[in-house]
Amino acid sequence: MHIIDMHTHIMQENEKAANWNKDFFNKHKIFAANLMSAPGAGKTSLLEETIKKIKNEFKIAVIEGDLQTTIDADRINALGIPSHQIVTGTVCHLDARMIHNVLHDFKLEGIGLLFIENVGNLVCPAEFNLGEDLKVMVFSVVEGAEKPKKYPVMFHETDAVLLNKIDLIPYSGVSLKELEKNVLEINPLAKIFPVSCKTGEGIDDWIGWLKQQIRK
Amino acid sequence: MHIIDMHTHIMQENEKAANWNKDFFNKHKIFAANLMSAPGAGKTSLLEETIKKIKNEFKIAVIEGDLQTTIDADRINALGIPSHQIVTGTVCHLDARMIHNVLHDFKLEGIGLLFIENVGNLVCPAEFNLGEDLKVMVFSVVEGAEKPKKYPVMFHETDAVLLNKIDLIPYSGVSLKELEKNVLEINPLAKIFPVSCKTGEGIDDWIGWLKQQIRK
Repeated sequence: MHIIDMHTHIMQENEKAANWNKDFFNKHKIFAANLMSAPGAGKTSLLEETIKKIKNEFKIAVIEGDLQTTIDADRINALGIPSHQIVTGTVCHLDARMIHNVLHDFKLEGIGLLFIENVGNLVCPAEFNLGEDLKVMVFSVVEGAEKPKKYPVMFHETDAVLLNKIDLIPYSGVSLKELEKNVLEINPLAKIFPVSCKTGEGIDDWIGWLKQQIRK
Repeated sequence: MHIIDMHTHIMQENEKAANWNKDFFNKHKIFAANLMSAPGAGKTSLLEETIKKIKNEFKIAVIEGDLQTTIDADRINALGIPSHQIVTGTVCHLDARMIHNVLHDFKLEGIGLLFIENVGNLVCPAEFNLGEDLKVMVFSVVEGAEKPKKYPVMFHETDAVLLNKIDLIPYSGVSLKELEKNVLEINPLAKIFPVSCKTGEGIDDWIGWLKQQIRK
């Protein structure tokens, strides 16, 4: 048994499927954003707030990844946005093959913006390229300011970090300044947006930047 | 390449090492507790509060698992408790072999209580038996009441669930009642302790129960 060979093989297979996805997105003029975070950081809430504000401008679809349930896909459908739930069972991340399989069935004609909400996990999703145009990370400030140092891989890979739940800062004792410093230490190019999906603070800044990325 | 065979092989090898660890703990009369949670749920804070209250009663040691840094081991050492940091790199969980390797070097003579703080991940650590006597889960209530349904594996495997950060309930809008109901739906035998490592609420109940388990 060669575990390292197997890991290499899995990653090579993933890259192949990711390239296929990338070609598909390019061909159909779909901008694909991969949303990653630890469990409960607020990916679905961020999607809801974002979709409400831009659904008249972009034709949007969402692929949801979860171990179990269709709770997240149901929340997106409730906004009148088509969504497809991938139930991964015990698999702790989405991979490019899973997305590839969905692209065969999920009707994406005319869609301009596809959000892929990954499984809630601050480690593994960052290792799997999905063929996306943008990697976005949601981080709940309540998780603590030192986390970029302890979980560097995802912070390093992402294009943007949304520091969510800033409404809880006064009660949690977390320093936003220290957190931002720690993010930039791992990834000096990361675009950082402090936001609150509850109060709406910072959401417009994030959306403004997202639109720029889509229109690039 | 046979990915399913490889998974079976990894799990079989893990069980072998877990049995070795279990024998070691029994022989040396060490009670071992495996602490699991998503990132930033408060495992280390819980350990600090627990250690402060029982370090005169039990001789304690801690094994820490993190992708990077010795931040957690340093916090434990600051309490005068021996700790050993496992740095996993990109590996998203502790496995029995990693613990086995530590047991060769880490001086545990006379230790009665060993805490193993797993990597912050709500998915994979639950799959890897470490040979421990007790599995304990820390869950930050701020992550949301529906999470037991979406991440059932760890909730199903654990002996106890500590619902931490209850001091943030008034500001987060999460229903403790709904969360408890969802935990018990996945695991009717789970012992549930609402706690706050910040205010100290509930910590004595958890410690009382922990002592009962150690003395069984």
